[in-house]
Amino acid sequence: MRMLILGGDGFCGWPTALYLSQQGHEVAIVDNLARRAWDIELGTDSLVPIASLNERIVAWRELTGKNIAAHIGDLQDYAFLSQVVRNFQPDAIVHYAEQRSAPYSMIDRAHAVFTQVNNVVGTLNVLYAMKEFVPDSHLVKLGTMGEYGTPNIDIEEGYITVNHNGRTDRMIYPKMPGSFYHASKVHDSTNIEFACRIWGLRSTDLHQGVVYNVQTDETKRDPRLANRYDYDGVFGTALNRFCAEAAKGHPLTVHGAGGQTRGFIDIRDTVRCIELAALNPAERGELRVYNQFTEQWSVQQLAERVSNVAAKMGIETTIAHVDNPRVEKEQHYYNAKHTKLLDLGLQPHLLTDETIQDLLASALANRDRITLDRIPAQVKWR
Amino acid sequence: MRMLILGGDGFCGWPTALYLSQQGHEVAIVDNLARRAWDIELGTDSLVPIASLNERIVAWRELTGKNIAAHIGDLQDYAFLSQVVRNFQPDAIVHYAEQRSAPYSMIDRAHAVFTQVNNVVGTLNVLYAMKEFVPDSHLVKLGTMGEYGTPNIDIEEGYITVNHNGRTDRMIYPKMPGSFYHASKVHDSTNIEFACRIWGLRSTDLHQGVVYNVQTDETKRDPRLANRYDYDGVFGTALNRFCAEAAKGHPLTVHGAGGQTRGFIDIRDTVRCIELAALNPAERGELRVYNQFTEQWSVQQLAERVSNVAAKMGIETTIAHVDNPRVEKEQHYYNAKHTKLLDLGLQPHLLTDETIQDLLASALANRDRITLDRIPAQVKWR
Repeated sequence: MRMLILGGDGFCGWPTALYLSQQGHEVAIVDNLARRAWDIELGTDSLVPIASLNERIVAWRELTGKNIAAHIGDLQDYAFLSQVVRNFQPDAIVHYAEQRSAPYSMIDRAHAVFTQVNNVVGTLNVLYAMKEFVPDSHLVKLGTMGEYGTPNIDIEEGYITVNHNGRTDRMIYPKMPGSFYHASKVHDSTNIEFACRIWGLRSTDLHQGVVYNVQTDETKRDPRLANRYDYDGVFGTALNRFCAEAAKGHPLTVHGAGGQTRGFIDIRDTVRCIELAALNPAERGELRVYNQFTEQWSVQQLAERVSNVAAKMGIETTIAHVDNPRVEKEQHYYNAKHTKLLDLGLQPHLLTDETIQDLLASALANRDRITLDRIPAQVKWR
Repeated sequence: MRMLILGGDGFCGWPTALYLSQQGHEVAIVDNLARRAWDIELGTDSLVPIASLNERIVAWRELTGKNIAAHIGDLQDYAFLSQVVRNFQPDAIVHYAEQRSAPYSMIDRAHAVFTQVNNVVGTLNVLYAMKEFVPDSHLVKLGTMGEYGTPNIDIEEGYITVNHNGRTDRMIYPKMPGSFYHASKVHDSTNIEFACRIWGLRSTDLHQGVVYNVQTDETKRDPRLANRYDYDGVFGTALNRFCAEAAKGHPLTVHGAGGQTRGFIDIRDTVRCIELAALNPAERGELRVYNQFTEQWSVQQLAERVSNVAAKMGIETTIAHVDNPRVEKEQHYYNAKHTKLLDLGLQPHLLTDETIQDLLASALANRDRITLDRIPAQVKWR
């Protein structure tokens, strides 16, 4: 298949591009290199050194003989985007090209506005480009489990049948996002549903959980192919961050009580989920929603898992319950369905001690690159 | 009370400003005059001649001795908006300042993007200005009944209790908007709910039905105070448009079967609803949703009402079922609750033959101002 990876230089996009290329698909990347610019803005850097996009692509070609085309530009630039789409004629458009950090969106007004405009306009432009040039293509869009929030009922995959006053309807599952970033994904979902309904586009909205682990079989093949490892308070996420903290001798920072429970997924499953969705496209006019995660964990449980594995490796850790910078429930019901990708054949990598050990080893090998004052989550929601 | 009317030069904003001023409130208007620019863009004009905002305000002062301050600027300009909010210290911020035409948002990609950025960023800026300068103020935000779409169950006022797999939660009522404009209001509602939740702001989101009638007691007092009357295919709405069509001898254009049922409200009730919401503010941290309409009508029923009243006035009409430019159900269940504003004391102006007669008379008096080729709804959804 012809796969266009929007945001193909990012944490999920790059390993996805490699995996799909390895599987024999024809892959092209669109990226505006924004993620690298945000590192400069925030004074952070990937814990594992990463090559430039150009070096990455050259290395992949040297190793495999496979070509990945790269188009540098912004989805908000419709002239650019639509030309790439028209020329490449993708079977699937995998859309990661969004500002994806909740804390980044909460830095201040300007960052909230930037996040929502960047994400919403980018996605609107993708929808119009599909309508105009590839109406039969399939949009594989990355959403987030954070669109749902933490309701007191089971979370279904995108839709819920509601019985009310003696009547019934299948409705879009109600959303309650936890940041202006998460809200931007809700906005996207609303726009995509509408576009599928009126234009007959096909889309799969992958409500992804928190992604952990860093490298895949492909990114491990050469240091120039290495994936980025975020450990900082803005872009770093649970598990991976705990491993960096443990490696640096920093307390594992749990926000508040730590009962916050979320869906998690290994990045090796992320890349496989994308291919599964692409190989089994939605119908024309259909917006499918898959909850893309494999296990539920509380933040406290993850900190303890990391702490235990670290101990076996001779690393002493402490768990610090710091003031929660976010506004969120710290104890709550959480039961989210996630069977649709399993039905398509996903064989999950569940969280093993070996995975944590790999992450710790990788963080230890690069511990001099960790800037201590970048670790705390300093962006406050209130 | 100190009332800041965002979009105070528009179809609902101007009569609201006058009504609140008449009731003794201190009123200030913010407007970027965009609505007048869209008339120029589209080659349309109000059926009833309207004065400039400055002339309007001078006339009101001459007639009543009451001052209304006007600040010309764009909500997307935070430096401008925040300064007005800080200086005026409003008790309530009434927010009409959005692009409010579904067809306008569907003209093309650029208009869809403009509508969503204009509306979403404007509202984000209002929320940040409140947080920063008037955290105890009350946001009275105009949403739309079109956020809900036409579900097969009763439409509640913003929230619904869902029982699912033996558990229960009070959730945000699921949304299914019918245009990129309606979607922008869904985005706003999502952002406002989040801002109230994390910052403790107070807001009332008025999901307004289709507004009919044009003049209020205040706007009738002087021709310079007249409210705009939109009859064109982009900004004109059901009833008012039918009256203009009847006056011009154009068939009453019903889209498709005409079974589309919506909530409707007389503009004299709109202005009263705003005051009722403002006098009874939401609690800190609360987002209330009121469905702001008084009666349900199908489009076909309204066309027949106008046709009958016109006949009594000696005007012959025909009803033409034209191809529906929108993608929407033309026969559907529709039962939307609207008791909360009645509970606050709203005494509705239900649709009378006299109101239709007034509209027809007003359209007849200005029939030479109607441009025939502006009447058809030419913007197609597909």
